Amino acid sequence: MSENNLENKSEKYFEITKKVDGTRARMGIIHTAHGDVTTPQFLPIGTKGTIKTVTSEEIKFWGATMVLANTYHLWQRPGDALIYKAGGLHKFMNWKGPIFTDSGGFQVYSLAKMRKVLEAGVLFQFDMDGKQEILSPEKSIDIQANLGSDICLILDDFPGFPFEHKRSKESIELTKRWAERAVAEHKKIMDHGDPINPGQKLWGIVQGASFEDLRKQSAENMVELGFEGFAIGGVAVGEPHEEMMKAVSYAIPHLPEEAPKHLLGVGTPYDIVQAVGQGCDTFDCVIPMREARHGRLYISARTEDGKEAYETIDVRNAQYAEDFTPIDSSCNCYACLNHTRAYVNHLIKSDEMLGARLATMHNLRFYLNLMDKIRKAIEFDYFDDMLNDFKDLTPPKARAKSTND
Amino acid sequence: MSENNLENKSEKYFEITKKVDGTRARMGIIHTAHGDVTTPQFLPIGTKGTIKTVTSEEIKFWGATMVLANTYHLWQRPGDALIYKAGGLHKFMNWKGPIFTDSGGFQVYSLAKMRKVLEAGVLFQFDMDGKQEILSPEKSIDIQANLGSDICLILDDFPGFPFEHKRSKESIELTKRWAERAVAEHKKIMDHGDPINPGQKLWGIVQGASFEDLRKQSAENMVELGFEGFAIGGVAVGEPHEEMMKAVSYAIPHLPEEAPKHLLGVGTPYDIVQAVGQGCDTFDCVIPMREARHGRLYISARTEDGKEAYETIDVRNAQYAEDFTPIDSSCNCYACLNHTRAYVNHLIKSDEMLGARLATMHNLRFYLNLMDKIRKAIEFDYFDDMLNDFKDLTPPKARAKSTND
Repeated sequence: MSENNLENKSEKYFEITKKVDGTRARMGIIHTAHGDVTTPQFLPIGTKGTIKTVTSEEIKFWGATMVLANTYHLWQRPGDALIYKAGGLHKFMNWKGPIFTDSGGFQVYSLAKMRKVLEAGVLFQFDMDGKQEILSPEKSIDIQANLGSDICLILDDFPGFPFEHKRSKESIELTKRWAERAVAEHKKIMDHGDPINPGQKLWGIVQGASFEDLRKQSAENMVELGFEGFAIGGVAVGEPHEEMMKAVSYAIPHLPEEAPKHLLGVGTPYDIVQAVGQGCDTFDCVIPMREARHGRLYISARTEDGKEAYETIDVRNAQYAEDFTPIDSSCNCYACLNHTRAYVNHLIKSDEMLGARLATMHNLRFYLNLMDKIRKAIEFDYFDDMLNDFKDLTPPKARAKSTND
Repeated sequence: MSENNLENKSEKYFEITKKVDGTRARMGIIHTAHGDVTTPQFLPIGTKGTIKTVTSEEIKFWGATMVLANTYHLWQRPGDALIYKAGGLHKFMNWKGPIFTDSGGFQVYSLAKMRKVLEAGVLFQFDMDGKQEILSPEKSIDIQANLGSDICLILDDFPGFPFEHKRSKESIELTKRWAERAVAEHKKIMDHGDPINPGQKLWGIVQGASFEDLRKQSAENMVELGFEGFAIGGVAVGEPHEEMMKAVSYAIPHLPEEAPKHLLGVGTPYDIVQAVGQGCDTFDCVIPMREARHGRLYISARTEDGKEAYETIDVRNAQYAEDFTPIDSSCNCYACLNHTRAYVNHLIKSDEMLGARLATMHNLRFYLNLMDKIRKAIEFDYFDDMLNDFKDLTPPKARAKSTND
């Protein structure tokens, strides 16, 4: 594909603007009802309708184009009915750019006190008041329609790690049946309801753990339903990097090349570069923000032979208490331009909110800068070098676990 | 006094630029080593070297000119030696404007687990590790010299409320003896030490509870020691507004008119307007920020006969959950221009840091706007109206208690 595609701009939901020979990496633009998302892209997570510690103005200034919000959390509080009354999530949180919502399936999996997968949906117990409730495929769509996100997801079922073939096979079959119901519900609301966002697009989710046959089957199931975009789910559940890459590489070839693809809950900078090489376009992950609040900061580094890499430091460590240098001398975020490791060490050890703010802004900027580097590497034809060279130099024991919340 | 004083600008520490007939209110400029402070002025509190939730850039943008930091907290963590190594508190927290430091006396009074007043200083037990330590008049000066603030204070002794004459008399006598030692220590450091801020000024503190004879005596004691600025202390310890105003009105006439005067730990907007009428120039108080974090927000209002007033609301209340109007429609802060009461209600109830940020920025802006209104009222000759008209319309049971931390 080439610049010729630009002619079709107004017709295509996703434009591929550049491809990389020898890998599946590509650059593109997703045209949403609230503006364009240039890919590859990282979506900061606004779990409860706020990117933790950050204003909408800041996240935009730092270079984010789309944010992710959590269906489950907003359903619980303040409730999707209230957000509908506010005019939708864009207005409620005053974020004018695109919003991506998950289906709530992951939170029910990871947070609910009690969870039972039924044909009707997921029966689970709320963590706040002990009340049992069902999240059905239809309910998830109803909530997301009330939020008015630009991209919403079907409710999916998936097993945790370690992966097991029989349970994974059941999960892709159930996910398929739920997907059919979600599609019907979404169509009903878009055609006959009064949706906040008539331009909302529903994406499918491919499951199947790290089994080649199941990822292929699940991808084909989703393609059959005619989705314009796809998420790859069931990863970032505690599996090693290699298993995650298997899951991705087994799914991608069976999805339409011209469709945008999101990798749910991933991951470390290293994971992201590798997954871009596999053809993933967008990513969301709590790592940069959650780690920031605990003092773990992402720092640019070089490999022994001078190649671009990164590592993490725990800025709470005593060695940084009198370190009057910036968090990362090569970073252009407000925290790095204005403050020292010693100051951030003091703030985080003192539980001062400004510490969480400075650390969050740095880590998010690191991730958003990383995506910019990836896009430049694709645009200027050196992404294959980046794919081979870019390493995580953090000692393994300090490495972040790519779970989600 | 008049514009003629401008000719002497380079010679005077404090210039009075305008006075109000019939009250002691005045406008002025304190020339500090880190820039000018236009008075009357409110000092946001940066207890631990950070205005809670706020960056230096923001607080400057919102109109603050001087901030207050706590000697006691910074001594405990990260320690004044570390801040000295960082090049002083201005560099450590990257605040380029003037800094005012208290002496630590108030925190030892209000926070220490155990506190015993000795001639040598205050013996107290640290709240973090249980270790006993003495804060002496000299030690307080040493710490403040290491911080490098522009205005520092003598260590003072004061009784709590209810006020008692005998104990209050002892406190002004001890405060006088401590003041002499503080002056000697400060002179020694400025003349022979290697101070971070050679332009640091030491101010005296007037004590004496709400007793006319004691406030007069204490003021005279301080004037004898030749301070260029004075703080009025021992208030905001739980006393009624009337007792606070007695303390102020008994002290001020015995202090040089041409000296700047700070009222420690005060107060509500109503307190501040009244104290400006008594001749106080600067104020510090945790109320706007601490209340903000708990959802209590300051809102412009009108009295029944249309005069300018204010009230507070608890934005966590159910009545605001679906209130899609700004916190205060007449306010120009980022929170009011971009967000609704419903959103702030959701954020604070969800313990989201952005809630504390938005509420803090609003309340600080309210206080800083208030000081701007006071200065305009003085400049344009209607401060006497403001003094009579400006009322707190908050129902008494919801009113903030003017304590400090």
